[in-house]
Amino acid sequence: MEFTFLGTSAGTPTRSRNVTALALSRSGHKPWYLVDCGEATQHQLLRTRYSVMQLRAIFITHIHGDHTFGLPGLLTSASMLGRDEPLDIIAPVQTQHFINAALESSDSSLSYDLNFINSEAPGFYWQDQHFGVTNVALSHRVPCRAYVFTERNLERQLLQHKLKANGIESGPSWGELQKGNDVTLEGGRILRSDDYTHIPRTARRLIVAGDNDDPTLLSEACNGSHVLVHEATYTQSVAERVGPWPQHSSAEQVARFAQQARLPNLVLTHFSSRYHSAPGGTPNINQLAAEAMQHYRGQLFLARDLDTYRLEKDLSLACLGQTHPL
Amino acid sequence: MEFTFLGTSAGTPTRSRNVTALALSRSGHKPWYLVDCGEATQHQLLRTRYSVMQLRAIFITHIHGDHTFGLPGLLTSASMLGRDEPLDIIAPVQTQHFINAALESSDSSLSYDLNFINSEAPGFYWQDQHFGVTNVALSHRVPCRAYVFTERNLERQLLQHKLKANGIESGPSWGELQKGNDVTLEGGRILRSDDYTHIPRTARRLIVAGDNDDPTLLSEACNGSHVLVHEATYTQSVAERVGPWPQHSSAEQVARFAQQARLPNLVLTHFSSRYHSAPGGTPNINQLAAEAMQHYRGQLFLARDLDTYRLEKDLSLACLGQTHPL
Repeated sequence: MEFTFLGTSAGTPTRSRNVTALALSRSGHKPWYLVDCGEATQHQLLRTRYSVMQLRAIFITHIHGDHTFGLPGLLTSASMLGRDEPLDIIAPVQTQHFINAALESSDSSLSYDLNFINSEAPGFYWQDQHFGVTNVALSHRVPCRAYVFTERNLERQLLQHKLKANGIESGPSWGELQKGNDVTLEGGRILRSDDYTHIPRTARRLIVAGDNDDPTLLSEACNGSHVLVHEATYTQSVAERVGPWPQHSSAEQVARFAQQARLPNLVLTHFSSRYHSAPGGTPNINQLAAEAMQHYRGQLFLARDLDTYRLEKDLSLACLGQTHPL
Repeated sequence: MEFTFLGTSAGTPTRSRNVTALALSRSGHKPWYLVDCGEATQHQLLRTRYSVMQLRAIFITHIHGDHTFGLPGLLTSASMLGRDEPLDIIAPVQTQHFINAALESSDSSLSYDLNFINSEAPGFYWQDQHFGVTNVALSHRVPCRAYVFTERNLERQLLQHKLKANGIESGPSWGELQKGNDVTLEGGRILRSDDYTHIPRTARRLIVAGDNDDPTLLSEACNGSHVLVHEATYTQSVAERVGPWPQHSSAEQVARFAQQARLPNLVLTHFSSRYHSAPGGTPNINQLAAEAMQHYRGQLFLARDLDTYRLEKDLSLACLGQTHPL
């Protein structure tokens, strides 16, 4: 599994950080999935190997503009490129209104279908062959969700001794069972894949959270998750100065939660534009890292635009850096 | 007068060219004016000295997304920066619908007022102390306008001999007359500024046209204009292959018109993303320049993103290059 940050700034873009978007793929770059779509997400994609032609679904955490204003441009550009595959948009209903208004008021039509799916429907669940996706309600100025991506259809190993012991000869049925399909033999005997195969590893699970001032809402979802991507808009002292109104988290707050939840990997993002990334700039992004490290002893990362991360099958997470240079 | 191209690509952005926007100022960068606002215009502004805090008005040529989808982000970012000056938006009414839908569906409100002005109203005219602006209807798939910017309030020279001959003594009234203000003397005598001052030069005039397949619609407006910024989406041969439907101009078509209109300066922009800017890339942007030069003998420029042009008081135009580097 790989994911690439397309934007890591809160609210407004800076010269080095765009507003929020994240690209995710299970292997290679097709299909892939987008979480949030701030303005100029399509511009950032031009600097990666992800193409809008292979985009399977867009997941929107909440309706704020720094997470959604890139949608009209990305969708119409895909149309100008001739996309014909339908595209799922999992989002609050207001996002559907926004997209429809943008298309209508610009005399645009798309060359492909949009399937709108309400992210706030009770019992939300979405899946394709690669991922099953649930979500968790967060606490923000508007309804907001974290999306939990769990990989599906893991590689199976045949239990050959059991197959032979039960008199099932090697042949095409073995192949079907290994693919996860149940098989009906001549004579009507049914073989369940789950009975004759074994999945030798744990399904990888990644949580990508939207804006949120209460990380503990993710306690249950973090149980069994391997990576949490969460906002850390300010340091604790700035958060206190700003006051509770914006409903964002501090680095300390997220770090304390991740430590308590025993999360192995934490990636912080969505930094206030006041923080400078260049060495010497004040206030500096390193203050957020220093604060988080005081409270969290797992593997900590601060996201940068266009950085790609890989979550391996052995559940280790590595930052590959900017693997998609200009 | 200076203007800077913030985007020069048609329809979709490329790695080196954003979609359409142009910043204009009379002197310095405050106030300034924006013509069109494609997605990521606010991002391009971060690479210039133009600030959304000093933006006086936005002129939209037509409703297509590559000219308008940057509006919601630019407007909300100005609000997050604390702007309180009202902002004029001169645009078709659908653009107002788009902006309102974007703000409502993202739970956004602005810290300043928007004044919407219908660009398609008969007899359209807008002015402030720096510019008077008219527009011209063009020919495109949707209603589209060219904006004609004429500078106002030029420096006046006092006709001192005439003042003295008419018995008007040097004093504060001379200063008022030179500023262009009429003066009422004690005793009720009225002095008109126009009678006692002289404007020693021609007002500079710039036309920024939107998408258009018939440059001859600008014939009248070009009379007395010093610069025309016009789209040249393709070469003539590509235009013929594409067919008339998109309703764009070829480089040859615009160049022939500019020659006939005896325009001193022509800046081509809005190039199809098929044209490469880098040497050796095929098809190359230089094909557009070569084609235009065959038919136009005035001063010709091909716009590049972030290039700044200066129209001097002597009516000469110079490209200053990328005067606002990163």
